Amino acid sequence: MLSLATSLLWLDLAAVAVFGATGALAAARRKHDIVTFGFFAALTGVGGGTLRDVLIDAPVFWVGRPTYLVACVVAAIVIWFVGWGQGRERVLNWLDALGMAAYTVVGALKALSLGAPPLSAIVMGIMTSTFGGIIRDVLAEQPSILLRREIYVTAALAGAVVFVGLHQIGIAPAIAGSAGFATAFGVRAGAI
Amino acid sequence: MLSLATSLLWLDLAAVAVFGATGALAAARRKHDIVTFGFFAALTGVGGGTLRDVLIDAPVFWVGRPTYLVACVVAAIVIWFVGWGQGRERVLNWLDALGMAAYTVVGALKALSLGAPPLSAIVMGIMTSTFGGIIRDVLAEQPSILLRREIYVTAALAGAVVFVGLHQIGIAPAIAGSAGFATAFGVRAGAI
Amino acid sequence: MLSLATSLLWLDLAAVAVFGATGALAAARRKHDIVTFGFFAALTGVGGGTLRDVLIDAPVFWVGRPTYLVACVVAAIVIWFVGWGQGRERVLNWLDALGMAAYTVVGALKALSLGAPPLSAIVMGIMTSTFGGIIRDVLAEQPSILLRREIYVTAALAGAVVFVGLHQIGIAPAIAGSAGFATAFGVRAGAI
Repeated sequence: MLSLATSLLWLDLAAVAVFGATGALAAARRKHDIVTFGFFAALTGVGGGTLRDVLIDAPVFWVGRPTYLVACVVAAIVIWFVGWGQGRERVLNWLDALGMAAYTVVGALKALSLGAPPLSAIVMGIMTSTFGGIIRDVLAEQPSILLRREIYVTAALAGAVVFVGLHQIGIAPAIAGSAGFATAFGVRAGAI
Repeated sequence: MLSLATSLLWLDLAAVAVFGATGALAAARRKHDIVTFGFFAALTGVGGGTLRDVLIDAPVFWVGRPTYLVACVVAAIVIWFVGWGQGRERVLNWLDALGMAAYTVVGALKALSLGAPPLSAIVMGIMTSTFGGIIRDVLAEQPSILLRREIYVTAALAGAVVFVGLHQIGIAPAIAGSAGFATAFGVRAGAI
Repeated sequence: MLSLATSLLWLDLAAVAVFGATGALAAARRKHDIVTFGFFAALTGVGGGTLRDVLIDAPVFWVGRPTYLVACVVAAIVIWFVGWGQGRERVLNWLDALGMAAYTVVGALKALSLGAPPLSAIVMGIMTSTFGGIIRDVLAEQPSILLRREIYVTAALAGAVVFVGLHQIGIAPAIAGSAGFATAFGVRAGAI
């Protein structure tokens, strides 16, 4: 069986890759070159977690462990070869929902583990999960997820509250995290 | 009588709430939901101070003390219930001027107290007081305060120069701060 | 003869001033006042290096040494008096190419010297050299360098790979840096 730490690492890598893929898809909208694909993938993939680490004064997660950058580059290459065409928008939305739900939990968990109060941890979860997409939309000059009349921040908020709330009353991280992930993804899925 | 430290805390909380209110008003422009109100309020309210703390490598002020986030949420709720309608634009401008003047002084003071040279403290005061509004305008897709043909950065610059200048020649922080606040607010008020 | 450290400081100051000048030129596009010139110059000039220092948790380079801010102010004043008119766009592009090439090398070198792995150092070089221009374009509401169908990030990537690669196989920093600078500038120059 995987240990919790190893599972979290894989979850984290998967969320980075999935967010990175949405960044590459945003680049694809304008038929950019492969380098811009990679750049958007990296900015979107690690943007939220970078903000989180800077705010809680932790070493920025990808600087010492470039595996995360590799995950973004791989995501960009995959999107480059198979990514666009019919249904791209839908795929983008679903990938984004998965990444958002995972990042909400990972962001709040890391803040809690470094001693942040619950309310700050909730905000950190929301920022981690939305900031990458905000950067992507601003740089790709798309209407921001914040301005689309859709349930996005609300989904992250719901997931973060469920996770941090369960964690505060002593539920094991794996269970609290799964519940938070399911909540964020479920609320978002209902709006797609 | 209030001590200087307590006065500063209240001034700081008031500036965060006032900036937060301008963020919520920006969200109101598009009739967003309450969560987006809160998100814009938080980004605008704590954005400038967050940048300041990251740049001078101080612990980010709101992470360990979520009272600031509560102030933003309260501001968002107040705006949600009473905020828009006739004259919203004017209220936004005046609130923004108050927050800008307060943040200019608070930002420069914090930088000075951590040993930054005077010129850096002036720049830090300007960044603290303008960055929240810049984020708000970029994310709300409004013309940035930087691009409106108005005296805004100039007002912050004037206030920061007055405050840091008086502080450098030995004037007490409360007096130097009041003079800086009055200068920034006065210059901005003349332009509204 | 200048020592390597002194040369690097001068290279760094020159890159900051040159980037600052591009920021002031962007402000000139809308006939702004001198303060906005200075503000854009500072944001563009120190933006990329600030991001780099925050990400590798080094003290932000300009906070303790305001000479860099002076360089941006000087650049803004020069542009204010001589800057626009015919050919401004071309000058902007060439200055930007010089600044980008210098920053790519400086950014990657600083990351390496603080122990970052090669891949992270390459990304840091790219971010340092592109982030100032990205901020400038977003705030000036111009199409971002990321979206123009031009070779920009690619040039930074090429320069960073050449520099870090040569550095990793033991070439002296001055030679590896010159090769990286020439590569980034050459690739970009071919696209202007």
